[in-house]
Amino acid sequence: MAFENRSFDAVFYEAFEEEEKVLREFLPQDVNCLFTWKTIQESGHELPPSPIISTRTQSEFPDAWSPHLKAIMTRSTGYDHVSSYIIRNGMRDRISCAYLPDYAARAVAEQAMLLWTALSRKMKKQMKSFESFNRDGLTGGEVFGKTILVAGVGRIGSKIVEIASGLGMKVLGFDIKPQKVLEEKFFLKYVSLEDALPTADIVVCALPLTSGTEGLFNYALLSKVKKGAFFINIARGEISPSIDILKLLDESRLGGAGLDVYDCERELALYLRGGRSAGDFPDGPGKRAEAVLKMMERDDVVLFPHNAFNTVESVRRKCCQAVENLSCFLNEGRFLTPVEF
Amino acid sequence: MAFENRSFDAVFYEAFEEEEKVLREFLPQDVNCLFTWKTIQESGHELPPSPIISTRTQSEFPDAWSPHLKAIMTRSTGYDHVSSYIIRNGMRDRISCAYLPDYAARAVAEQAMLLWTALSRKMKKQMKSFESFNRDGLTGGEVFGKTILVAGVGRIGSKIVEIASGLGMKVLGFDIKPQKVLEEKFFLKYVSLEDALPTADIVVCALPLTSGTEGLFNYALLSKVKKGAFFINIARGEISPSIDILKLLDESRLGGAGLDVYDCERELALYLRGGRSAGDFPDGPGKRAEAVLKMMERDDVVLFPHNAFNTVESVRRKCCQAVENLSCFLNEGRFLTPVEF
Repeated sequence: MAFENRSFDAVFYEAFEEEEKVLREFLPQDVNCLFTWKTIQESGHELPPSPIISTRTQSEFPDAWSPHLKAIMTRSTGYDHVSSYIIRNGMRDRISCAYLPDYAARAVAEQAMLLWTALSRKMKKQMKSFESFNRDGLTGGEVFGKTILVAGVGRIGSKIVEIASGLGMKVLGFDIKPQKVLEEKFFLKYVSLEDALPTADIVVCALPLTSGTEGLFNYALLSKVKKGAFFINIARGEISPSIDILKLLDESRLGGAGLDVYDCERELALYLRGGRSAGDFPDGPGKRAEAVLKMMERDDVVLFPHNAFNTVESVRRKCCQAVENLSCFLNEGRFLTPVEF
Repeated sequence: MAFENRSFDAVFYEAFEEEEKVLREFLPQDVNCLFTWKTIQESGHELPPSPIISTRTQSEFPDAWSPHLKAIMTRSTGYDHVSSYIIRNGMRDRISCAYLPDYAARAVAEQAMLLWTALSRKMKKQMKSFESFNRDGLTGGEVFGKTILVAGVGRIGSKIVEIASGLGMKVLGFDIKPQKVLEEKFFLKYVSLEDALPTADIVVCALPLTSGTEGLFNYALLSKVKKGAFFINIARGEISPSIDILKLLDESRLGGAGLDVYDCERELALYLRGGRSAGDFPDGPGKRAEAVLKMMERDDVVLFPHNAFNTVESVRRKCCQAVENLSCFLNEGRFLTPVEF
């Protein structure tokens, strides 16, 4: 299948069964697309079957395709892989690129809510105590009236602010770009981390990973929390070192932790899938994975496998945004959510 | 210790350590109360040490105390035990009684929210999948935009309506006494169960137990739910037969169940504490307990041990309401939340 075959308006790589089904549902009937669950490499395509291609994050864009492409749409929020390809091939002035900015924000925010509610109500202990129908030590806390600090009030953080406000919580936010609309609508109060940490009952990390945020919630900073506060991270594990979180739990400085992301996901997956033993990782990542495994045993810690984005609704939003972008490009030659270089 | 010793303004029976501490915190300094964790029977008091006594639900009021009592305050929402004592002893015209109407409503409503959020996000499966860092089959649902049916919009149901509305859900309510304020404030729409069941994504039982509600959510009624709906019961187990819930889960009519209460709590406790084996309960309650034990194994069921009321805040509200009632009675001779006979 060669580029000269213009029968496809676009090619969707890495489109898994459920996603393809929803994409087809949203696509106008007169738009003719090729779908494959394979990456570009797995597809064996020597040239692009259409000048418009869409991928997720696993495909590598072949330099040889560069002269044949008019547009690339990545169906992901991150677009580093697109930018580096465009820049490397000097294509900036002759290609349009799109990404999907916030399809998963509500899904991620609701995962955060589940984590802080579960911790507040001692959920793991409630479930275990059911096995003996015992109520000792099960007095939990209500979230109504509690103070929550949302670190990073971007797309995901804004949704967390909305949810927390809806639950009658006092909402503090930390962000480099305060948004007046959130202050007015949800009574959000912007604060510095240093001021807010000693007062918040719940701290949620919704920051992007940058050189400035990597390791930010380390022992030194997080030891400033109010005694017994809960720490939630649904953003990037690299921002909150696992070893530090465990230490703060051991010292009863933190009253609980709810994590969807880890600073050692590769090693953790290897450990947990049984391919490696603890002795194989005596170094940094191994120690970090070991800390997470210790947290797994605790009743005051709830751990999810980097799954916050994963809802039926976010898959639908992703497909809807992808189709809207494609339709706009086919009709008007521009994307709705373009990558800015 | 006899009634003639008037040194105590009131006696608090069944006041456990944490409750006594909070009661003392709220009590005015000039009010002198006796506290004991014991029931009246366990206390060994032959006559009441004060004409004003307060209990929870375990004490039995001695008929011999009847001429010596001016007031009884039960620190519970139910007051059947008080009413029957007053009526049996013909004390209606010479005694004041109080109960605590809604100290636990928010606590119970938040337990309901935890249950429906946990089911929506396949929480048990997420936690189990963490153990292999696997994400297969973990696509959950968001609660935003979902339709929730609150059956029983009383004190607890109103709080559930408030929470659901705050989370951006569409809220349907079933109650014999519609409240206009809830319709206006939370866009609650009152409906019949028959009309609402086929449309709701989540059904929450917050009904009181009466002869009209016992067994209401049986197989015949609940089989009318939208396929895959979640059923939550934080009210009374007798309203939703366990055997019927299990059958609807087995048939995939219900997509999940979140329960804090059971129609066989005594038998369930005996089973789970190991004092009885399944063979000891071949009859009705045994079959019901067996159904709950089968549900315990399922990923789409979350079970808590009748613990919805149990938060730090509800203990504080309970104590605050008790003290406010007592102060009002001591100053003005009337309770704020009297039992009406």
